[in-house]
Parts: sequence; structure tokens; C-alpha cells
Amino acid sequence: MAPHRIHLDDPPEPFDRGSTITIVGDEAKHAARVKRLEEGARVELLPGDGRVGVGAVRAIGKGKDGWTLDVGIELVRRVEPVRPTLEIWSSPPKGSRLEQMVDQLAQIGVAAWAPLSAERTVVDPREGKLERLDRIASEASKQCGRAWRLRIGPGGGIDRALGDDLPVVAGDATGVAYHDERVASADRVRLLIGPEGDWSDAERTRFDALDIPRVAFGPHVMRIETAAVAIASVVMHRS
Amino acid sequence: MAPHRIHLDDPPEPFDRGSTITIVGDEAKHAARVKRLEEGARVELLPGDGRVGVGAVRAIGKGKDGWTLDVGIELVRRVEPVRPTLEIWSSPPKGSRLEQMVDQLAQIGVAAWAPLSAERTVVDPREGKLERLDRIASEASKQCGRAWRLRIGPGGGIDRALGDDLPVVAGDATGVAYHDERVASADRVRLLIGPEGDWSDAERTRFDALDIPRVAFGPHVMRIETAAVAIASVVMHRS
Repeated sequence: MAPHRIHLDDPPEPFDRGSTITIVGDEAKHAARVKRLEEGARVELLPGDGRVGVGAVRAIGKGKDGWTLDVGIELVRRVEPVRPTLEIWSSPPKGSRLEQMVDQLAQIGVAAWAPLSAERTVVDPREGKLERLDRIASEASKQCGRAWRLRIGPGGGIDRALGDDLPVVAGDATGVAYHDERVASADRVRLLIGPEGDWSDAERTRFDALDIPRVAFGPHVMRIETAAVAIASVVMHRS
Repeated sequence: MAPHRIHLDDPPEPFDRGSTITIVGDEAKHAARVKRLEEGARVELLPGDGRVGVGAVRAIGKGKDGWTLDVGIELVRRVEPVRPTLEIWSSPPKGSRLEQMVDQLAQIGVAAWAPLSAERTVVDPREGKLERLDRIASEASKQCGRAWRLRIGPGGGIDRALGDDLPVVAGDATGVAYHDERVASADRVRLLIGPEGDWSDAERTRFDALDIPRVAFGPHVMRIETAAVAIASVVMHRS
């Protein structure tokens, strides 16, 4: 039987061979009551940073704060991140579509999402919203079995989005069909998705001046969250 | 100024140079009250079957059944369908995720969606549900400016899905990375997406016997609606 997998919200330290990790909360209750694990059961602990702690249940208890599970780690494996490591900086879509997008990006294997504040961006997620998105990303990363959790934020304006040394692609319905050799061979790529009101002329001029490809996908108008999933799928696919 | 576009729910006949088409309901009200079109205004009529009727408003009226708009057609253009023509047959996801999927498939340019009844499919949409999906497909096709409306249904079992003479691809997390020359050069492709409970062994054996590629996308578990959008994006993208 495959070992039961437990995703940890915060990476515990130390997290090495010989460490004992105490699991609490819903994960402990689920393991004890639903999965009915017993002492000695094989488990894997995933802190979401590529490490997988392989070990066994040492003790199961129930106190006034609920169930606890002590897991003894016997070895720590490391899972390589998905290549390319794709970051998406997008203007946030409105309402529940933002949460739906984060959930879908986790499933397709995107490494990070950050809010992009472009000239015509109308939604500026506050700190509390980013924390909520972080919880959604964490939950979605568990659901789809990621060893690397989808990272959220912090994002910023176009200056910030263009300020790192990595290949950048801008989604743009007026651009050319996607085909970029630099991106196809890069280990790390950043994809920018503009607001519903579209990029401004100044933003397009800036992309062109910096030789940042503006790429279109498909013949129709796409909302932000659909464009992000569709273009990311194509960029990440290397046959 | 770009002509105002009006999407028609049912293709009127005749629909030729010289025809006068009477628009009623929300589209007429929107044109008259929100867009404030006047007699002589340029409009385009889109019945959703690739035809675009180019013409002008001949008369605007308001009766007891609401606003009406008479449009005289001066010429009919034909828009080619998106290539490849991609049909998706998928096991229907539960609840609102089915409607969300149809909406996203319209945006990325998929030609048709049909419910696939696989061995482990648990959702079997009734006739009323398909009619509702048809309305959502129609509305989404308008929103994203499609000249060809996303078609819905009727679908069926695996026999039916494999019964036509066109290249078929099956999404399968246990399959190989997508790369299929037959599909890459085909004008028309059918993509099958299985149920949350996965394809059965018998279904996989059948695909293999018929030389139908089982293709994986990405390293993680995807829900039906995310898999459909992600794999369709990759299949439709030809750089």
C-alpha cells in the first residue's frame, strides 16, 4: 500500500533523518480517524518545498486540543521542481475568479503567482486577500499532490515584474503566435497577463523596446484566468 | 468606429444580401437603449455558424413585446473555423464546474463539447442540463466574439466517441507526454477526458489496441475541467 501522505503548512526545522515531527489539527484527525493509521504505519511528510520526509507513525494521541500524530523521519528525499519554473504575474481577476485561477494554476504545475499592477489594473488585492490565496494555493497543492507548493505574491508594478534577470513573456491578444526559443530552453520563465482593459500603449512600447515577446493565444478574447491557464499550459509543454 | 455586433440565437433563413432580419429581445434592447444605435448605424449579425451579415439598421421600434431592430444585410462574409477543429468529449465534472468548463472552452476556441459516458462516469447530464449548457456556450461565444458558436452534445459512450473517422487523443495521467504528428497535422481532432475515477483497465487496453495515444499533461493530478482546458490549449497550439 502506498504510504499515507501528509502535507505540512509550515516546514518544521529540523526536518532530517532522526527528527520526530508532531502533526496536529485536521491532518492528524484525518490520519487517525479517517485513514485509521496505527503505530508503525508508513507515512510521507510534504512541507511543500520539494522535501519528502519518509518515515513511520511513532505515537497517536488525543488531548484537549484534538488529535496528535508523532512521525519519526527515516530519510528525506528531494523532488526536483517542474521545469520550466513558471511564474505568472497577472492583473487579478475579480471576485471568485481569482481563487479559481490560483486553484487551476496549482493543478497545471505553475511555480508561483503574483498580482501585477498594470496601468489599467482595477483589482488590488490587500494583504488579507493574499493570505487567503496562500491558503487556497496550499490546499490546491495538497489536492493535486505537489511536492512544491504554489507560491503566492508579493507582486507589484511593471518595473518590479521586469526587474529580475529571467526571460519574460507578455500575453497579448494583439501579439504574435507563441514561439520563443529563449523561453523554450529556459529553466525559469515569467509570464505577464494584463488587465481586462488591456495593456496600455506605453506598456506595449516598453515590452517591444526590451525585446519581450508579446504572444497571442487563440483567436478569441479570453478573460484573465482563462488566458493564464491556456498560455501557461502551452509555455510549460515541451514535447 | 467598429460596427456593433449582434449575435443571433437561431440562424435566420434567408440570410443573404438583401435580407431584412428583425432583432428582438435583449439584443434589440441593448442596441437601442445602451448602444443608442440609430437608423443607418452599421451592424454585423453573427448567427454563430461562421457567417457574418454586414449591414445597417433600417428601423427601430418599440411595441408591447419590447424593442425591435430591423437590419438590412448588404453582404455576407464567411469566417473560417479555427484549425484544428477540436472536439472535447469529457466525463462531466460535478456541479458548477461543468458550466465553468464550457465557458472556458468557448474562450480558448474549442469547436464542440460532448458528455462522455465512461465506465466510471458518475454524472450523466439530462436533456435539460444540456439545454442549459447550450445557452451558456452561446453566451460565452458572444462574449469572446466567436463567429462559430461552441456546440454542445449529444455525446455518448466510448463506442460512440470512437465511432467517427478522425484522430482521437485520450488524456491520461499515466500516459506519455503529448506529441503526436497525426494530430499536429489534422484538421479535426477529438480529445477524450476521463472521469475523476480514471479510465478503467479495459478502456486503456482498448485505446492501446486502436493506437489511440494516451497523453499526460503536467506532473500533477488535474480535475476534469482543468485537464480539458490545459490539454486543449496544447493540442490547439501550433507554432
